[in-house]
Amino acid sequence: MSILCVGSIALDSVETPFASADRVLGGSAVFFASAATLLAPVRVVGVVGDDYPLDGLDFLADRGADLSGIEKREGKSFFWAGRYHADMGGRDTLATELGVFADFQPKIPEPFRRSRNVFLGNIAPSLQHDVLDQVESPEVVACDTMNYWIEGNRESLVSLLDRVDILMINDDEARQLSDESNLVKASQWIRERGPDIVVVKKGEHGAILFADDWLFFVPGFPLEEVFDPTGAGDCFAGGFMGHVERTGSLDTADLRRAMVYGSIMGSFAVERFSVERFIDLTLEAIEERMLSFHEMTAFEPYAQVEERV
Amino acid sequence: MSILCVGSIALDSVETPFASADRVLGGSAVFFASAATLLAPVRVVGVVGDDYPLDGLDFLADRGADLSGIEKREGKSFFWAGRYHADMGGRDTLATELGVFADFQPKIPEPFRRSRNVFLGNIAPSLQHDVLDQVESPEVVACDTMNYWIEGNRESLVSLLDRVDILMINDDEARQLSDESNLVKASQWIRERGPDIVVVKKGEHGAILFADDWLFFVPGFPLEEVFDPTGAGDCFAGGFMGHVERTGSLDTADLRRAMVYGSIMGSFAVERFSVERFIDLTLEAIEERMLSFHEMTAFEPYAQVEERV
Repeated sequence: MSILCVGSIALDSVETPFASADRVLGGSAVFFASAATLLAPVRVVGVVGDDYPLDGLDFLADRGADLSGIEKREGKSFFWAGRYHADMGGRDTLATELGVFADFQPKIPEPFRRSRNVFLGNIAPSLQHDVLDQVESPEVVACDTMNYWIEGNRESLVSLLDRVDILMINDDEARQLSDESNLVKASQWIRERGPDIVVVKKGEHGAILFADDWLFFVPGFPLEEVFDPTGAGDCFAGGFMGHVERTGSLDTADLRRAMVYGSIMGSFAVERFSVERFIDLTLEAIEERMLSFHEMTAFEPYAQVEERV
Repeated sequence: MSILCVGSIALDSVETPFASADRVLGGSAVFFASAATLLAPVRVVGVVGDDYPLDGLDFLADRGADLSGIEKREGKSFFWAGRYHADMGGRDTLATELGVFADFQPKIPEPFRRSRNVFLGNIAPSLQHDVLDQVESPEVVACDTMNYWIEGNRESLVSLLDRVDILMINDDEARQLSDESNLVKASQWIRERGPDIVVVKKGEHGAILFADDWLFFVPGFPLEEVFDPTGAGDCFAGGFMGHVERTGSLDTADLRRAMVYGSIMGSFAVERFSVERFIDLTLEAIEERMLSFHEMTAFEPYAQVEERV
């Protein structure tokens, strides 16, 4: 089986304080698949214009991605340009040109409709509904969104929550969606509307998984250089869902590991522009970073101390 | 043996969106000792005015704190008033009245001078130097500071670093002190100037310990209500140094646990005003939260997966 992933396929122009990249591969589906295909097969659905360098995605096909759901249409591909601030903490959007993405109507190819796991990348909630209308009883539906849809399409987004098992969302977006400043309460608000699991992404500070009666915290990997943060959240989702797909398990031990794979993939994403870091990334390097995460979080709880109070 | 702790002893007036407290016990030495005495004996050095309700510190003496280093002088105690923002993320200082603290000259009582571990609370670097001039070869000197001293007393602070084993500092302060926006580089900059260990505190996001060739990450405890963040950093230091004192160990396993005790004490600190939460806090509740921290961070690294790449 494979993960069905529906999202944007874009060209990004990125400026950082150190370097810049012009019209490189980007978009939520591309970042997601770059990470997820290292762990499991992925079926990609999206749309590109006739200017898109589709051979740039060959490395995904080589890793077992099925790209037959990528529709090529006359016109320009989705284009995004942004400039990161000096400390990489924030960014300004310089351009957003939707191109053929403006009329995107996801068509899920027949063989994709029985996918076990589904990832709804950050697109309009109405399109995310459309995707779910076309798939047959998937086991796990994971979903991302952004402030733009929370502000402009709240009703459609909230009704979508009821069809979602795992919502992956930034901390600020979780607060905005729930109108709760406290993340514990925000995640509870979201979980009451459908998802069994809420993964709150906190950028360099890591991520928290909130489930029924437990939670799990994974830090961000401390890097000396953050080269380009674009796509880190989608790569997090790719690592997470890649592990869910390859194990077919949502038990707590596997969900914990899924969180760590998420943070690992997010940490690789920011080491280079675009999806460059993933093209020749090895499972060995991933497992090595897994051990580093274990090393930097593991401790023995220690109860054998002299009673003082 | 005991930890020698030198810092402010203050009265705080605190307003939060939910409640307010007027002239309650505060100051870095008081918060530190409230947490540390749960794990190890503490010797407190500081100054109060004749308006200070010293009997409020009886609970510290009951837990084996030696308060004989607290000097009582004619005049007003150090007073701080602040108001927290709606999301508890920031605060405005409404008043800072130094009172007798303005002329504070730490005098370390003779029996305190051979303390094994020393905590220099957030006071002027010149006074932190004065304290170290009076103690005899302590094993571990831990130190806190703040942006005020980084801006106004940089030279004295940087020369102090060479006399410090563990610097505990907020993320923004670490960046400011080192002029490095990246925390890995910032901690390296600091470690090159003296401390073997740098603990970077990130508030609700937890803390990172940077040592020679390893690091350790502890999250903040996710609370549904943050009642009053005042003093959480000092309580973190108290938990950390309390564990160092009671074990006499700086090996990596114990430093990891020290980090967790720090975050545990920080999480208790914010549950009530002032040091209220520590007055009847039990070791049992602390160890229970230790298990919760373990529960929310532990995972098994998993290498037995099918090779895909």
